[in-house]
Amino acid sequence: MIPGHEIAGVVKEVGAQARRFKVGDKVGVGCFVNSCKECAPCSDHHEQFCKKAVFTYDCKDYFHNDEPHMGGYSNCIVVDEDYIIRVPHDAPLEKVAPLLCAGITTYSPLKFSSVKEGSKVGIAGFGGLGHMGLKYALAMGAEVSVIGRSEAKKEMALKMGAKHYYSDVKDAKGANLDLIISTIPTPYNMADYLNVLAYGGEFAIVGLPPRDKPITLSASNFVWHANKKVYGSLIGGIKETQEMLDFSVLHNIYPEIELVTGKDIDRVYYDLTHSNAQFRHVIDMKKSFSS
Amino acid sequence: MIPGHEIAGVVKEVGAQARRFKVGDKVGVGCFVNSCKECAPCSDHHEQFCKKAVFTYDCKDYFHNDEPHMGGYSNCIVVDEDYIIRVPHDAPLEKVAPLLCAGITTYSPLKFSSVKEGSKVGIAGFGGLGHMGLKYALAMGAEVSVIGRSEAKKEMALKMGAKHYYSDVKDAKGANLDLIISTIPTPYNMADYLNVLAYGGEFAIVGLPPRDKPITLSASNFVWHANKKVYGSLIGGIKETQEMLDFSVLHNIYPEIELVTGKDIDRVYYDLTHSNAQFRHVIDMKKSFSS
Repeated sequence: MIPGHEIAGVVKEVGAQARRFKVGDKVGVGCFVNSCKECAPCSDHHEQFCKKAVFTYDCKDYFHNDEPHMGGYSNCIVVDEDYIIRVPHDAPLEKVAPLLCAGITTYSPLKFSSVKEGSKVGIAGFGGLGHMGLKYALAMGAEVSVIGRSEAKKEMALKMGAKHYYSDVKDAKGANLDLIISTIPTPYNMADYLNVLAYGGEFAIVGLPPRDKPITLSASNFVWHANKKVYGSLIGGIKETQEMLDFSVLHNIYPEIELVTGKDIDRVYYDLTHSNAQFRHVIDMKKSFSS
Repeated sequence: MIPGHEIAGVVKEVGAQARRFKVGDKVGVGCFVNSCKECAPCSDHHEQFCKKAVFTYDCKDYFHNDEPHMGGYSNCIVVDEDYIIRVPHDAPLEKVAPLLCAGITTYSPLKFSSVKEGSKVGIAGFGGLGHMGLKYALAMGAEVSVIGRSEAKKEMALKMGAKHYYSDVKDAKGANLDLIISTIPTPYNMADYLNVLAYGGEFAIVGLPPRDKPITLSASNFVWHANKKVYGSLIGGIKETQEMLDFSVLHNIYPEIELVTGKDIDRVYYDLTHSNAQFRHVIDMKKSFSS
């Protein structure tokens, strides 16, 4: 398996029938590279829910003999042009790459929940996803609260524009948030978060605690918090991913990254698994292969 | 404490400033009898979420010295006219009473989720609430599947108009429901139900498993079922309760009831706590007090 699904680069070659891109164009590839183009989710521009979506790595390519599709830790990748995102020429490729997963994952629920000027948004968990959620919500005119688990990221969150930082969700009582995006990757009690939503508020789950450690909630709590909704959100379709990228370039919204090469991967992996990583790492493949 | 919050009767007396009802009118009283009339939920006709909602029993009456408000197991009750439901003269009082909780509890999510001609609705749990959900959904033009936990209620459900009956939610795979209303009063894994929703479907929780036995779900499951939403629904506001009652009378939708008197209560309570009850019991207070 070759991993990698936040890919940005330059077109090296095009097929005989390609019409959308030409050699030299800057482009991006996100979490999936094909889908059936016919089912309800595909028709609704949410190809990520197509039962035949071909995820960029560790997935069968249903349209090419069920062969595994290879990801972006590579110096080239072949992708159907309909699943490629156009990147403006002046956008920095190394900062565009993480937008194709972390960017769209947080942009999509903000749009789904109609965040606008004056909305009160909470970002739970402040890492690679959370800091993008903060930037987008601010650009949409929202007042943003970051809910972390310690004081460690307070300064950074406030510096990036958060109005409030809570090191414990219980301190957020009375915050009356219209939307919370949970990027939390560990188990939690959803009730604590529903408690800080305003009447009619929404709770979007994008972070993934381990499958064997379920989120818990009591039905009583849920019912007494009615008119609040919970939904899961999974990246976004191609159309919305392009919209997100255009929005990002227009508002100069990019992730905080550290550019590394192939030889740094072991060190980066160690940091990631020891809560020692800052936001996003991007691998420079050109340098990785030439060095 | 005097319980009871599904109350129907005839006006015996009105206050000097009463304007909505006169002596002899048929009326109903549901789960709450007052609220602040000013907050966001009150302004939105969802008084049930008002922080000062006075529930019909076992609740302080915030507007009358915090005295406990007494419920409907009684031969009279005094209620602010704004919280009284008008009952048409030709409607059977004994069948109207349970509509004021079981009726509105199932009617409200059907409306909230915009159920209409051709919608596919699932009713999970088929008791006092579930059978009302079935009747309303049918009247709205939906195709209804009932999801039970055994074959015991199959015949009854099909007789009442269900198109499908599943004795196990896992058998409902491929049902592609637009909405499931869960009236289930015991713990369950929500993932099993999200699996049988159609793309974009909704899961409404109205049944209350015990507080100390949480519903579980994995975030992964939730995210991969995105574009499906979960919400809790709590009875309904006064405006919607009146709408539900008018709809019920128009479509001749009433609960299956057994009319009892005060002396039957011990037997009924035993049946209820031993899964031996059929739908709803209604206490005839007139007979209870005269016998």
